[in-house]
Amino acid sequence: MVNNLSSQVDIVNHLKWRYATKKFDNSRRIDQETWSKLEESLVLTPSSYGLQPWKFVVVTDQKVKTQLAEKSFQQPQPADCSHLVVISRLTSMDHDYVEKYLESIAETRSTTVESLGAYKGMLTGFVDRTSQSDLEHWMSRQCYIALGNLLTSAAVLKVDACPMEGFDKKGYDEVLNLPEKGLASVVLCALGYRDSSDKYASHEKVRHPVSDVVIHI
Amino acid sequence: MVNNLSSQVDIVNHLKWRYATKKFDNSRRIDQETWSKLEESLVLTPSSYGLQPWKFVVVTDQKVKTQLAEKSFQQPQPADCSHLVVISRLTSMDHDYVEKYLESIAETRSTTVESLGAYKGMLTGFVDRTSQSDLEHWMSRQCYIALGNLLTSAAVLKVDACPMEGFDKKGYDEVLNLPEKGLASVVLCALGYRDSSDKYASHEKVRHPVSDVVIHI
Repeated sequence: MVNNLSSQVDIVNHLKWRYATKKFDNSRRIDQETWSKLEESLVLTPSSYGLQPWKFVVVTDQKVKTQLAEKSFQQPQPADCSHLVVISRLTSMDHDYVEKYLESIAETRSTTVESLGAYKGMLTGFVDRTSQSDLEHWMSRQCYIALGNLLTSAAVLKVDACPMEGFDKKGYDEVLNLPEKGLASVVLCALGYRDSSDKYASHEKVRHPVSDVVIHI
Repeated sequence: MVNNLSSQVDIVNHLKWRYATKKFDNSRRIDQETWSKLEESLVLTPSSYGLQPWKFVVVTDQKVKTQLAEKSFQQPQPADCSHLVVISRLTSMDHDYVEKYLESIAETRSTTVESLGAYKGMLTGFVDRTSQSDLEHWMSRQCYIALGNLLTSAAVLKVDACPMEGFDKKGYDEVLNLPEKGLASVVLCALGYRDSSDKYASHEKVRHPVSDVVIHI
């Protein structure tokens, strides 16, 4: 197959352009049209079995962002960014959730839940045989697919981003009332535009050489 | 800030185009130029602390792909795809690894390892206070950032992909001799081109509505 390479998105250069932004320009906001694209991209993230065991808490309220920054180990990004996405997993995954998911498949694809019997068996079997702790790990891993997708989507839209694991999860959950929503925070992505004084923007990216990190078989 | 939206990559439509390909056209291969871009994109994946606790095993040998398909719960994608990426985590993370990483930072950024003392303290502190089990979970989660990035990068290059958790990890590790390389398989991504008979290509995508899955604060 011959691809039309000239029409391909220059993904490598988009990914080289991005970096973990340490200092956002707190006067700049992502415009609504661009944000809608990012939000839609995030929602399109694939997940195991399609179960999407997550919600995305998007914080733009400055007061709340400042509160969260205080629970982020002295990192300023949550306060200074334009949009802070708290990628959160569900606290539980049960037959009810599976049932609702099957109903949404049936509705979207104009079929019946009954016709999805084999799939239902697979999903409920997975939920039943997996411990709560393993389900939590599994849901958390799915959240990282969303993070990877969001970071790459932001890069191609030339929106700066910083993925963040360094925050007080309990503190975030409390400020955002996540437990009562059936959620637990997993990982953050701060988005906005780099401040011109952020010296990290000009740092050479450090990655394992392809020859070290890719094994061809 | 006014973005030049007309020049933006149409990320949403790229992500709508993609789907978890069930049936690959086994006569079609990803050309070398496109594959190099995907591989470089994968290597550019960001990770916590920049530690990149992974290797990417790219399998194109048909005999090995067929062997792996036999350990994939009757799923044909590993055999029929063009490139099978076995995203693997390191089996351990220790001071030696941190030291080598710091050396690569120093070399890349023309500085000394000594000048990175504070960062070294942070990294070794993280490694020391984290149990082996938690390190494994953490490394696995990082691998899912790579998966998310790879899926989105493939979509914008119009390469089909299927993320796969359903495989016999021990079996894969054995076939690929991962333990002796200090690796453990985490998750797969089969890449190539959809077969025209794959009915899943035309299925309507099922996602939570934005209003359900995004919470604005």
